[in-house]
Amino acid sequence: MAANISEETLKVSYEQLTDLEKEFEENEVEIIRHQVALNKPLYEKREKILSQLPGFWPLVLEQAPPDVDQYIQPSDSAVLLSSLKNLTVSHFEIENGGKGDPRSIAIRLEFNENDYFEDTVLEKKFWHRRAKSGWTGLVSEPVPIKWKKPSKDLTQGLLDLVVKVWEEDQKRGEGKAPITKPKDYTSAQKELKKKIETVGMGGVSFFGWFGFRGFPISEEESKVATAKDQENRRLRAEGKAVPEEDDEEDEDEDEDDDPYGLEIFPDGDELAIAISEDLWSNAIKYFTSAQEQGDMSDIDFEDGMDEDDEDEEEEEEAEANGGNEPPAKKRKA
Amino acid sequence: MAANISEETLKVSYEQLTDLEKEFEENEVEIIRHQVALNKPLYEKREKILSQLPGFWPLVLEQAPPDVDQYIQPSDSAVLLSSLKNLTVSHFEIENGGKGDPRSIAIRLEFNENDYFEDTVLEKKFWHRRAKSGWTGLVSEPVPIKWKKPSKDLTQGLLDLVVKVWEEDQKRGEGKAPITKPKDYTSAQKELKKKIETVGMGGVSFFGWFGFRGFPISEEESKVATAKDQENRRLRAEGKAVPEEDDEEDEDEDEDDDPYGLEIFPDGDELAIAISEDLWSNAIKYFTSAQEQGDMSDIDFEDGMDEDDEDEEEEEEAEANGGNEPPAKKRKA
Repeated sequence: MAANISEETLKVSYEQLTDLEKEFEENEVEIIRHQVALNKPLYEKREKILSQLPGFWPLVLEQAPPDVDQYIQPSDSAVLLSSLKNLTVSHFEIENGGKGDPRSIAIRLEFNENDYFEDTVLEKKFWHRRAKSGWTGLVSEPVPIKWKKPSKDLTQGLLDLVVKVWEEDQKRGEGKAPITKPKDYTSAQKELKKKIETVGMGGVSFFGWFGFRGFPISEEESKVATAKDQENRRLRAEGKAVPEEDDEEDEDEDEDDDPYGLEIFPDGDELAIAISEDLWSNAIKYFTSAQEQGDMSDIDFEDGMDEDDEDEEEEEEAEANGGNEPPAKKRKA
Repeated sequence: MAANISEETLKVSYEQLTDLEKEFEENEVEIIRHQVALNKPLYEKREKILSQLPGFWPLVLEQAPPDVDQYIQPSDSAVLLSSLKNLTVSHFEIENGGKGDPRSIAIRLEFNENDYFEDTVLEKKFWHRRAKSGWTGLVSEPVPIKWKKPSKDLTQGLLDLVVKVWEEDQKRGEGKAPITKPKDYTSAQKELKKKIETVGMGGVSFFGWFGFRGFPISEEESKVATAKDQENRRLRAEGKAVPEEDDEEDEDEDEDDDPYGLEIFPDGDELAIAISEDLWSNAIKYFTSAQEQGDMSDIDFEDGMDEDDEDEEEEEEAEANGGNEPPAKKRKA
């Protein structure tokens, strides 16, 4: 049926599709910008109501969808269920009239006094960046946690080491890329690598997520790559030739390179997206479904969550998950 | 920690959350409206490019995500892969300046001449409705298919029977609800019920989807329910009493009632949403991922899809699915 289409026509069609996909992405960014602005007053209203319901976030976490729940180890649950006071997501690059990327997000967890760490607030920021290779996604910086004792460190020292390596990278200077070749590793990097291999086997704590870095893409690299990508699309749309990539860039891609080799929480970006787009946005649905299905009395909430309640609620949660529809799917029109 | 909160405060907070959730939903509807308008020119551009790539939709279908793929039986694949020419989704209630619900969708499949049915276009419409019970979602009407021979009927007579029952319902008169109590079934309904029990066991054809009806909610019921819901929310927001439900409505809910008893494709609404929000919106991603991972040559496309190619592509698809990331998740800010 397509016998008369030349290879050249097909090649052009493929390129057009790839470029079109980027136009869709640009629209999507505008939609998110619009959506964030539109929903802002509602999220503020929600936070006000939630201040009346101190058990809200622990209950939502118990109902967490698999894309969040899979990262919460039993030892994490103990802290999160007893101490998580509030959870908020902000699109910090577009707040207060900012013109940045609405896909950049900050996730802020507030805690009550607990046995594990001194911090009452842990906030992790994710920047949406474009690499010169074409990769786009979220990158982050490690957030230290002040554990009360080494034995209370749920990451078993992983997070502290990531922070140490991060600080070394910062001292090495602004423009400099981090060391990503195992043969050039510093002693802290070697220690981290070894710890990842031993601790990683048993399943890394949810709190290891605060150590996620992602690909090392600077703001500058992202700006240059975005501008170049837009320019190339413009040229193709006008039917003009697109300049070849510099050889220099290929040389950069050394086989020894292992930019993800010291990542303690490789799915950190995925988890951030799951928290922002599902857990946080659908929190009322998860809470309501727990209420309806688990048939919990108001009294459970009044009492807060002591250890006996937790056991009961875990059973109720299992029932609720069995008989209940998950919150409505995300849509894209 | 919440010991001082009264039950009354908690009750009010829960109600406020439920009402707030509806405000989020209203925003979401506005966002979809905005998104559909913004993306319209891009989808038109995409359709123009796709006319150069006749193998596009069959290939996308081969890469279909599980929430679509699970409904495609091997016998359906033969028709879809050889004959599907085009697939489009429209938000028909807001087209040409319409002020309807942007969540109502029409899914249109265009086919080449094939051995199974006479139709070259099959279009199925889904209306977003609210029931007086509070349920909201998509409802539809059966779409008949002109099978070339009874032996070519992939639904084994199910679709024809659903259409017959539907026509009976229409003749019974506009305002009347369909018969939903098994003891009152007409002979066509009894025949349908029996066929569902026998054919359903082996897995219903994708084409059975054209028979999906969903809950019987008229446009009128939906309008009344929506207005009432808004009024009740307004009253609660102003701290006023909300009138009790009429007893009459409870009487309507007869235990004999089985509104889904004659549904030949119970997940029809889910499949519509999966096609619209995933397969259709992410079609370029599925296509590109097939291209990149399967390493298919342009030649395969030039030749169209004959039977030998299909086998090869099925193998390539398996590789592609194994090594490839799924398209980016949907987001909700």
